[in-house]
This record gives sequence, structure tokens and C-alpha cells, in this order.
Amino acid sequence: MAQLIIDSSHFKHNLDLISSHLGSIDKLALVLKDNAYGHGIKEIAKLARDYGIKSVFVKNEMEALMIQDEFEHITALYGSISPTSPTNIYQTIHSIQMLKSISPQRGIELKFNVGMNRNGLEIKQIQQAIQLILERKLKLVGVFSHNGYGDDGGDEMQKQHQTSQEIKEQITYLASKLGFELPRFHFLSSSGALRQEKIEEDLVRIGIASYGYLCAPIPIASKLKPIASLWAHQISKRTLEKEIKIGYSGAGVMPRDHVISTYDLGYGDGLLRLNEHHGRLTCAQGEEILPRMSMDCFSCLSDQEKICVFDNAWKWAEIFGTTPYDILVKLSPSIPRSII
Amino acid sequence: MAQLIIDSSHFKHNLDLISSHLGSIDKLALVLKDNAYGHGIKEIAKLARDYGIKSVFVKNEMEALMIQDEFEHITALYGSISPTSPTNIYQTIHSIQMLKSISPQRGIELKFNVGMNRNGLEIKQIQQAIQLILERKLKLVGVFSHNGYGDDGGDEMQKQHQTSQEIKEQITYLASKLGFELPRFHFLSSSGALRQEKIEEDLVRIGIASYGYLCAPIPIASKLKPIASLWAHQISKRTLEKEIKIGYSGAGVMPRDHVISTYDLGYGDGLLRLNEHHGRLTCAQGEEILPRMSMDCFSCLSDQEKICVFDNAWKWAEIFGTTPYDILVKLSPSIPRSII
Repeated sequence: MAQLIIDSSHFKHNLDLISSHLGSIDKLALVLKDNAYGHGIKEIAKLARDYGIKSVFVKNEMEALMIQDEFEHITALYGSISPTSPTNIYQTIHSIQMLKSISPQRGIELKFNVGMNRNGLEIKQIQQAIQLILERKLKLVGVFSHNGYGDDGGDEMQKQHQTSQEIKEQITYLASKLGFELPRFHFLSSSGALRQEKIEEDLVRIGIASYGYLCAPIPIASKLKPIASLWAHQISKRTLEKEIKIGYSGAGVMPRDHVISTYDLGYGDGLLRLNEHHGRLTCAQGEEILPRMSMDCFSCLSDQEKICVFDNAWKWAEIFGTTPYDILVKLSPSIPRSII
Repeated sequence: MAQLIIDSSHFKHNLDLISSHLGSIDKLALVLKDNAYGHGIKEIAKLARDYGIKSVFVKNEMEALMIQDEFEHITALYGSISPTSPTNIYQTIHSIQMLKSISPQRGIELKFNVGMNRNGLEIKQIQQAIQLILERKLKLVGVFSHNGYGDDGGDEMQKQHQTSQEIKEQITYLASKLGFELPRFHFLSSSGALRQEKIEEDLVRIGIASYGYLCAPIPIASKLKPIASLWAHQISKRTLEKEIKIGYSGAGVMPRDHVISTYDLGYGDGLLRLNEHHGRLTCAQGEEILPRMSMDCFSCLSDQEKICVFDNAWKWAEIFGTTPYDILVKLSPSIPRSII
């Protein structure tokens, strides 16, 4: 049976690198959303808790409940939280409407739009938001934004970071004027945080870098180690001659006389579907995968009983014109995860 | 919260069309593998059972156990079945080795390679396989193959079908000579079965056609109705002017002054990740989706609180150069499914 193996020493290596850059572990919050970017939320949560992480960010209430006992602070980035859920689960506020309807028992984090123009409140809504929070006696735990240019850097990143700083200043001013407790502030995620020399905020939200990847061309990127390797098991094998066709519509063609095996992962398990129009794709040790990928298996020039499909998702990301995030996050939750 | 709505009247319409083509419901076996091609295995299993389906095919033991009480015959196409699992779950045999190790208590189906050169035994291994089955007193429930040219038709499809017929003849001959009960035979799946005028075998395995799709250019394809529509809910909205940038790296650009909303589905939920190099993609009613898609949301020129992302996966398949199967099967199992 296929499996995803998580190397805990690589995970620790990445967290050491990141917290050393931050100057302390206290500012390091982890992003465990979307099944920990496909790595397995329960497995990664345990490793993170053991490392000393206190604050995490997940996709929604369902994910928060899966790890409710592991962390002091769990923020669901999307959706609402039911009244019966534990109080260490916070809800993200994306609109004034949400502030009007949320229960005063639930901790909240305000999300602000600083230029991605995607989710969150606008800076001009700060006063209205704070007024509602005070009137309704809501528990303001945090204030955050997301910088859409972390991977790119440059003026646009600085501009969005500047807007975040303005939000912090305005809320700090209002807190002192109106007498409410300052929330925690966090504006940067992996690329932005690792570009910044000094982190002024209380936290940074580290997702993909902790899993060993970074799309920004900065020195630390090459020091991170991918923590996951994907393994598949042989279903069937046969020796075929050069030019024999395989798979649907005979789209795969044997490049030479060789043993060809099928392995138990396919596009139904979340792999992107290789076809004859993509470039040449190989497994971790260079074993060629022949198109077209099937829903439950792929064909590969190999005789191994167990094959490492990848131990670094960049190769797959490049073949499919996407990011390592996209390759990893799609791995089906039904593939067993194990930690070594 | 996003949801996948399954239209039970469309499902019934498709099964009516297919069983009418087959001449009877008795030959109709359904393929529920990979979470019923992403539609939700438990939900589709209930509809199929109510329709009168007796035999189904699933990916593996885990899926078989999820629907163990619904059908008389459940075949796991891959992996092994543990001794404690119910006896209505059968294991597919892909190699002589598997025949040597399987428990005699477990019903088996022999899979043969008829030219896809992917999984299964070779025709030349029939005698050896039957000998082992008799020696080990194994329960031979079925014999099948998979035609890799069902979508294409033509000589190659006929050739693979002819090889399947030879397998049937050889096993029928051996059954009468050696005195064992004839297994059920099934060689065709959606496209092949719906191309064929008369079905000689005991069963056909219908997957994608029951969900409303067919990649073969045959008349019945246009009569099938997609059974699933994917819906997303608004997270945030704002009115932006023409040329304002949105999303990561500002890759999305407002084509005109308009309200833009984010909706709660992204590439972490199994959607393929739209970027600025793909063609123009729209939701079901023509609302434009702007690149780049995020992990948990997409941005769309719409003010609706709830949007139909698609009610037919062909549009997405075409934009991403893939099949509707691939679009549907990747939909995360955590998206709630509901039947109307």
C-alpha cells in the first residue's frame, strides 16, 4: 500500500532554521491548514507540539477539532465555529457582517486586506470593527493580514507590509484610547518572514517553509529540507519490448526493452494526471513514468517492489507548471502517513 | 460551506438509459471506486442499492468496508483483503504470486491483461492460474479484463475485446474439462459497453457513464446527465475598479469595474489550480474566475452569496487539458455531499 513518510529530523531541521532566523521559537506559529499542506494534520500537529509550538492556523472548524488538545491557540482561517467547540479555537473575521453575528464567547482574529484584494476587512473599516467589538464585548485575540508578494519581494511587498503596519498603529492607538487589551499581530507568512531581518510583530505564520519548500529566491530556501517522501507499491509487472504500447489509447510507448511495473498511486489519489503532452517525468531515482497515468496506478520502468515516487515535489511542480504546495496538498488523506 | 449536490433524478436517468441499452439491469455493475469518482461513495452506494444494483467495484478494502452492507458482491480492484472482512468482499488477483498467498476463504476475481500492459495476468498464465485455484480450493468468483481503447473504438478495441473472448473460451473449456463452476465474466466498462450492441458477458462495469459523462463520441454520450454540481459560498467581497490587481503576485487583473468575491473552495479542496497561463475559466453561469486560485478560495466576478462552480466538469477538463474524471475524482472527501 502506498504511503507518505514524514521525516521528523527534516521537520526539526526546518523549524530550527526558521526559529533561529526569527531569534526565538516564541514568534513561530505554524500553518497546519489543508491537512498540513497534505502532509497529515494529526501527524504534523504532534511533531509541532513536541517541538514547543503554541499557536497554529488551520482551514476550518473540522480541522481545528482534530487537533484541539495539542495547542493553546488554534485559529480557523475560514468558516464559523459552533458554540460547543473548545475556547482555544478562534474564528477569523472577514467582514463586518461576521462581527455582528458571532457569539461573544468565541475568540476572534480580524483579517485585513492589505492589497491582495481577496479576503478580509478594509483598513477604513477599523473603527467600525473596533466599535462593534467593544459594544458586543467580543474577545479580540488577534489581528492579521496576508502579504500577496512574499514570494516576489520588491516594492509591492513593502507596500503591503507598510499597510499592515498602519493597521497595527491604528489599533494600538485605539486600544490605548479606548482601553482594551492589545491583540496579537501577525502579518507575514513563510517567504515574507524569512526575507525580513527583524520581526516586529508577535507572531509569523509559517506554512510551506516548515515542510521544506520556499518559492522565494532567498538563501534560506536552499537550506530547507522537504519532509515528505511518497512511496508506492508494485501491483503488476511484465517485460515488454521497445515500442510496445501501454495504458489508455496506447499513449505510453516503451522507450526500450525493459521491465515495466504498475504502482498503486494514480490521479484518484491526488497526483496530477500525467499525459503524453507533458514533459518526461521520473520517480525519485530517475525511473521513467509513462503516460497516461490511470486513476489508481501509474506505469513505470522499474522492477522494484516499492518505489519512491518523490522526495521533493519540485520536479512534479515544474512538469505541471504549478507549485510544490499544489502537488503536496492534493495527496489524498486516505494515503497512510507515517513518521520516521 | 461549499458542497457537492448530487441530483438523484439525473443518476436514475443515466442508469435507466444504460440498463435499457444493456437490455436488463441484471448485467449492470457499478464502479464506485475512488469515492465514487469523487461523488461520495456512501451517498452513491445508497442510490445504487435503491435502484437495484447488486454488484459493485471499489478501489480497495477500505472503500469496500464503507459500503459492506449495501451489495451482494463487492470487488476491491486493488490491494489485499484481511481475513476478518465480510465474505461478500472479493479480492482482485493481478499475479500468480497473489494466488499462492491468498486465503482460500476469500472470493477472488482474476484480472487479465488484454493489451493495456498495465495490470493483471497474461493469457498464457490461464492454465497455471486455474491449476493453483483448484489445488488451493480457492473461490473463483469472476474473471475480467479492461479494454484500454473503449473511448477510441476501432481495430485496437476490437483486438482487445477478441483477446478477452479467448480468455472466456479457454476458462469455459477448462471448467467443463476439470469440473469447476464457471465464474462470472466481465470485460467492458462504460465506453466499450455502450458501443457494443449486444453484451455477451454476465456483467459490464459502468463507472463514469453513470455519473453523466462519456469520453467516447457515440450518440448515448449526449443523453447522459452529469449528476453532480459543485457549490461554493462567499467569504468576502469588495467592489474594485478595472485594472486593479488581485491575488498572489497580482496575477489576476480586474477586466472591468465590478464586485469581486472570494468563495470557499481552492486547490487544497481538489480543484485544479488556475493560473494566469490557463484559458479563461468561468463558473456555471458564466461568472469569470480570476487567477491565481488560492489553496482555500478563488476570486470571481460575482456578488452572489452562493455560486454554482460547475454543473458539468467538461469546461474545467478542457481548460486544464484533462478529462472530467480527473476534475471530479480530485474533489476532497471533506466537501459535504448532499443528495436532492
